[in-house]
Amino acid sequence: MGEVIEGVYLSTTLDLEAMYAPYFAAHADEVRLRKPEDIDDPEQVRFALAWLPAANAFAPYPNLRLASSIAAGVDSIVNCPSLPKDAVVARIRDENQADFMAGFAAWHVVWHHRNMGHHIRHEARQEWSRLGIDAFIPPRECTVGILGFGMMGQAIARAVMGMGFQVAAGVRSMPDHPVAGVEYHAGEHSAYDVAAVSDILVNVLPLTRQTRGLLDARFFAAMKKGAALIQLGRGEHLVERDLVAALDAGHVRSASLDVFEREPLPPEHPFWRDERVLVTPHQACECSPTKTAEQVSEAALAVVRGETPRTAVDRASGY
Amino acid sequence: MGEVIEGVYLSTTLDLEAMYAPYFAAHADEVRLRKPEDIDDPEQVRFALAWLPAANAFAPYPNLRLASSIAAGVDSIVNCPSLPKDAVVARIRDENQADFMAGFAAWHVVWHHRNMGHHIRHEARQEWSRLGIDAFIPPRECTVGILGFGMMGQAIARAVMGMGFQVAAGVRSMPDHPVAGVEYHAGEHSAYDVAAVSDILVNVLPLTRQTRGLLDARFFAAMKKGAALIQLGRGEHLVERDLVAALDAGHVRSASLDVFEREPLPPEHPFWRDERVLVTPHQACECSPTKTAEQVSEAALAVVRGETPRTAVDRASGY
Repeated sequence: MGEVIEGVYLSTTLDLEAMYAPYFAAHADEVRLRKPEDIDDPEQVRFALAWLPAANAFAPYPNLRLASSIAAGVDSIVNCPSLPKDAVVARIRDENQADFMAGFAAWHVVWHHRNMGHHIRHEARQEWSRLGIDAFIPPRECTVGILGFGMMGQAIARAVMGMGFQVAAGVRSMPDHPVAGVEYHAGEHSAYDVAAVSDILVNVLPLTRQTRGLLDARFFAAMKKGAALIQLGRGEHLVERDLVAALDAGHVRSASLDVFEREPLPPEHPFWRDERVLVTPHQACECSPTKTAEQVSEAALAVVRGETPRTAVDRASGY
Repeated sequence: MGEVIEGVYLSTTLDLEAMYAPYFAAHADEVRLRKPEDIDDPEQVRFALAWLPAANAFAPYPNLRLASSIAAGVDSIVNCPSLPKDAVVARIRDENQADFMAGFAAWHVVWHHRNMGHHIRHEARQEWSRLGIDAFIPPRECTVGILGFGMMGQAIARAVMGMGFQVAAGVRSMPDHPVAGVEYHAGEHSAYDVAAVSDILVNVLPLTRQTRGLLDARFFAAMKKGAALIQLGRGEHLVERDLVAALDAGHVRSASLDVFEREPLPPEHPFWRDERVLVTPHQACECSPTKTAEQVSEAALAVVRGETPRTAVDRASGY
């Protein structure tokens, strides 16, 4: 097999060693991952497992060939100023992750569509309180908009179409193989176009310069009056005070928020007690740590052989 | 058009006149529905709109040719001793109803699959409490069993397959056109066979002599240990004390109950406060009252012309 490939954990927010070392133990013949402070010879480091790395995090490692995320998102890696220009950036691919995402998103869609919060609140008070079916838009007349139509967005589309909903998707350009039944909106203005036709809007965009702060007052004004927002992308997409204003104005009816700029969401944050907002703790989906260790080890082996890992991403597009 | 066809409301539990008279107003040229006490000449009554009719409810109407339910279920009508032998029994067909059912059932599937109750409870306490993804069975390894595989059960199958789950269905005999990807279990023992392979079990059976009390101690013993029950059929399917025993034994992990023998569920009923049980107020789906008035009027016109209404059911099978 040759010698063990040296790697480094790089994160400003997570203790990656505590999270992943048990899973990399199965790959000890191939790779060895350590924290920066435990690295003897930085020139030996060939790869990094990274999540929100510091701006200068990659600087000490001149021979680093691979930077892998722990998830599908790689924006904090490709945007890191110290990332070597020629390093391969990889993400984790977990076929279960899209299924987990789809079910979670679909659950929130029904939460808003059927006003399930009404039943949760009444159950807590032992009150039987029916809502007549005429209070709800029939699914076939109800459009679920999806912002971010990669693997995750398409899985969500399949789930909600299986429940009879209409789907509108925002994309940069029309796909070669469009998903049957999906109403595509393409171009730079597509997010606003999707917002205008959606009764329930799901955000699963990646974080890029273009999408940071997208969910702001201008965006909410573009949404259909009375629509619901399901925010499963990245905390940095949302301008919180603008959402509160849109809820107060009654323009946005209700929201589910699973991601936040600051996580955990502090207990004093008003979203927790706002009946219009359902908070979940960044729970939509994540990659299996077992699969993460497998794929990162495989990618490290590939780059030292001069091959492109299966999990490599296009650095320019950011996904 | 000829003369207006006379009909009667027959229910021991619902004020059908209050519920439906506004919707039948649009059909006043075709039909006239009244309560039994408002009928002048019972011999003129040609049809009934019925829900849980009294045993002798039909006796005063010798010329009654049609008894329509207000929903998909007709068991309380076909089993009514006073129903004339040659009367046509009809149900309501509402294509939105299956969509509503599918979304509602899928919501409860995710509730149990992802332990969403954990998040609802923690949100109420402003507590951020993540659950690692390894705590959950990946959807593609998780079987959702469906008891009752007519229009409703098949719609639920589409919804949960769209979310990546496996589906097992209990049927009396193998269908000529099986739904692709569904694992069918046929025959008299099929409900128990489905129970044995299901991680999450959804009941949408009709109420018949064979299914009354089906969800009892014997049935729960046949379920996989740790599975969840979603009861959306009829209250009479469930033996409540047997479910409580199965929950206490840890054999059934959790349950959603939407239907009850006695509705509304009384506030003192222990299910309300049981964290393992989610109570919803018979909310899965119902027929649109607008569609109900349309279809009952059309069926009444059909029977007086000697035709079979589109909404007629087979009295022998009960659906």
